[in-house]
Amino acid sequence: MMSYTNIKEEAYIANMRLPKLNLVLFTFGNVSAADRAKGVFAIKPSGVPYEDLTPEKMVIVDFEGNTVEGNLRPSSDTQTHAVLYKNWSDISGIVHTHSTYATAWAQAQLPIPIFGTTHADHLTVDIPCAPPMNDEMIKGNYEYETGFQIINHFKNLELSHKEVEMILVGNHAPFTWGKSAEKAVYNSAVLEAVAQMALLTQQINPSAPRLKDSLIQKHFERKHGAGAYYGQE
Amino acid sequence: MMSYTNIKEEAYIANMRLPKLNLVLFTFGNVSAADRAKGVFAIKPSGVPYEDLTPEKMVIVDFEGNTVEGNLRPSSDTQTHAVLYKNWSDISGIVHTHSTYATAWAQAQLPIPIFGTTHADHLTVDIPCAPPMNDEMIKGNYEYETGFQIINHFKNLELSHKEVEMILVGNHAPFTWGKSAEKAVYNSAVLEAVAQMALLTQQINPSAPRLKDSLIQKHFERKHGAGAYYGQE
Amino acid sequence: MMSYTNIKEEAYIANMRLPKLNLVLFTFGNVSAADRAKGVFAIKPSGVPYEDLTPEKMVIVDFEGNTVEGNLRPSSDTQTHAVLYKNWSDISGIVHTHSTYATAWAQAQLPIPIFGTTHADHLTVDIPCAPPMNDEMIKGNYEYETGFQIINHFKNLELSHKEVEMILVGNHAPFTWGKSAEKAVYNSAVLEAVAQMALLTQQINPSAPRLKDSLIQKHFERKHGAGAYYGQE
Amino acid sequence: MMSYTNIKEEAYIANMRLPKLNLVLFTFGNVSAADRAKGVFAIKPSGVPYEDLTPEKMVIVDFEGNTVEGNLRPSSDTQTHAVLYKNWSDISGIVHTHSTYATAWAQAQLPIPIFGTTHADHLTVDIPCAPPMNDEMIKGNYEYETGFQIINHFKNLELSHKEVEMILVGNHAPFTWGKSAEKAVYNSAVLEAVAQMALLTQQINPSAPRLKDSLIQKHFERKHGAGAYYGQE
Repeated sequence: MMSYTNIKEEAYIANMRLPKLNLVLFTFGNVSAADRAKGVFAIKPSGVPYEDLTPEKMVIVDFEGNTVEGNLRPSSDTQTHAVLYKNWSDISGIVHTHSTYATAWAQAQLPIPIFGTTHADHLTVDIPCAPPMNDEMIKGNYEYETGFQIINHFKNLELSHKEVEMILVGNHAPFTWGKSAEKAVYNSAVLEAVAQMALLTQQINPSAPRLKDSLIQKHFERKHGAGAYYGQE
Repeated sequence: MMSYTNIKEEAYIANMRLPKLNLVLFTFGNVSAADRAKGVFAIKPSGVPYEDLTPEKMVIVDFEGNTVEGNLRPSSDTQTHAVLYKNWSDISGIVHTHSTYATAWAQAQLPIPIFGTTHADHLTVDIPCAPPMNDEMIKGNYEYETGFQIINHFKNLELSHKEVEMILVGNHAPFTWGKSAEKAVYNSAVLEAVAQMALLTQQINPSAPRLKDSLIQKHFERKHGAGAYYGQE
Repeated sequence: MMSYTNIKEEAYIANMRLPKLNLVLFTFGNVSAADRAKGVFAIKPSGVPYEDLTPEKMVIVDFEGNTVEGNLRPSSDTQTHAVLYKNWSDISGIVHTHSTYATAWAQAQLPIPIFGTTHADHLTVDIPCAPPMNDEMIKGNYEYETGFQIINHFKNLELSHKEVEMILVGNHAPFTWGKSAEKAVYNSAVLEAVAQMALLTQQINPSAPRLKDSLIQKHFERKHGAGAYYGQE
Repeated sequence: MMSYTNIKEEAYIANMRLPKLNLVLFTFGNVSAADRAKGVFAIKPSGVPYEDLTPEKMVIVDFEGNTVEGNLRPSSDTQTHAVLYKNWSDISGIVHTHSTYATAWAQAQLPIPIFGTTHADHLTVDIPCAPPMNDEMIKGNYEYETGFQIINHFKNLELSHKEVEMILVGNHAPFTWGKSAEKAVYNSAVLEAVAQMALLTQQINPSAPRLKDSLIQKHFERKHGAGAYYGQE
């Protein structure tokens, strides 16, 4: 039972950041951290308050969604995580929250327009909003289908999940991901900040223009391009 | 005087959570916890600041609204609690707050539309808003009548207080309840979060559609149906 | 120099509550506490950060606005305080802040409509908003005239400063008062909460009705009438 | 390596105030402090979390934008700071943040109207918003050109950077400055508060009038005129 210590610890730390970043109320969120070599991920147990979490309580699940280790039931959103890990082989962390502003955009069923450089520092397109699923998908394996709804929306929009690490699921709430659980949590906090700023921007100026292409490219490349010069790496 | 220790402690702990959850300013709220076997409830004394509360200061009241034990005057809303306990025999905790967003909806005299799964995880209908009482009720035993206004609105809408554990009282503020004081406090925090998200949703998209029935059923059954798979029970 | 210890202490404690209640940024606020028997009040020194305040730094000023004791310059709003104390002999505490929502209503130059019982628990009318002064008054003894602008607006609306303990000064910000500095601070926090709720109410329902008279009377009398039954006194 | 200790310490303290004042998420901000005698400034290293900052990690840069001392890469906005220091010889502190409300106004590409005395206590005109740069400037030395965009907008509006210590850069975010890093941080917090109040003012009253000239002059002179009587100096 000494196995999976690394991803349990990583998932624990990442989960504990959600309440500190004001991204969750009670248990309305979950983070997972994957070990690609072992083909599993560690995820928060379902409905356990953050103050009662420990690294040991994390549940180990494989990419088919089967529990591999752990006494507690994994997050009810586990199947969504499993589908994303299975189909997107280069991500190793996933976050789901019901953070206030991002969820409001999801409920409004609208993508978040790219209004400024805070947004462009992280992605070059509007933050996508997948439509609610059809009734058959909802009545079936709901969380499993949620994963495919996300993947299919990226295919429809011809987006790369390596360049766009976040989505709103219509009527529901956001999912974010990244190369690590820590990066996925970072993306959730960025999404919430961008979602709030975008709403305020439209309230100040209902005809505010989207960011022009040259600025979009410049800011994204500052952080992510071949000649990136943001940060210390 | 060693009696009622359990519900005094339960009511004290639940009351103290209100300021921590940012649901009250000063003394604008109260929680009660009922002991069904003894036919009484413990409730916050009126106007006492949260920092001065102790379990011993809780007032014990029966379901007719008569004080059974305690040196302090019970909350001015005590009669409303008594009426709800007397008529809804399966609840054991009640909360009243003036939390910001829920109170704004109450003042707007509108039910909160069900826009997303955060809402559907807890109830399957719009959060009801009882109309203000008629002048006769207001001039009479006001808090007692507030209890009946709540009960009658549930009857008019054919709602079950076991499935919908919250209401807005028009021009006034929210009441929530549950099987325990802790659950009732939980419901108050959920209501406040849902109320904020609903307002933001309408600001982003004034024609945002209500959640479709299949999603409403799915999310509620995840947490509350026969095959519920949220949490550890 | 041992004199005035009581009101210095009272003013100090009340001033320190402003940042804790999130009513001030930096030094954008001040509280005074009056000793009616001695005909003076203690007030915050001008521009001193809250973290550097001590009871000893409070400045003692008479009701003509003359400094009686203290090495520091008193708040730039001191003349407004002096005018109110001189003309309203039954108040012993005054607060001025630039709290966010109350100031927004003052900048909008609109009174805050009475939409709910949170408001009616404290006053039975819309929270008044005095118009900006004429240019002559502004160019003259500005803070002194601000006091008279407040008093004259109360006269014009036939309001009693004993029943309505708060006002917005158009284009500027709120002033509140009461029988003590503590009560005046309480009123500032209530005003800010009511100001936020009123804005949210109008955003949810632009045609939200004002509270009807019977409810206004009922809630105010619960707390303040001859048969008041709120609190422990 | 004992050199520049003063401005490193000053820049460190000022940078650490940004998260405490809720002006930054993660590393979305930077402060610099200049030593005019030595012709250099100390600035935050790029992408380093605030909790990992120390005075020693500050990077020393000259007014041409060349790093003079330090092992870490300076903030990606360093060239903007350099241009402003070089062209405006009487400022010794600069702050850049993506604070929520100020950034929303920048994204809306609108100046912030002067609606009240909170604004007039600090500057007598609308807070300017520079238009986004043309594509040539963006594709060139972007951060360097951002500095000139700010300077040119001040020239176009005939504003003095000594009287107006803040600007919004359209589609981007605010910059503020002052005689010290501490003053520039103060200005960033004031800007954020004024930006929020201005949005709320317009929401309450879409036709809210700008502050009249006599009040603008009075409040600014209280704090900054020849006969200023705010504060202790």
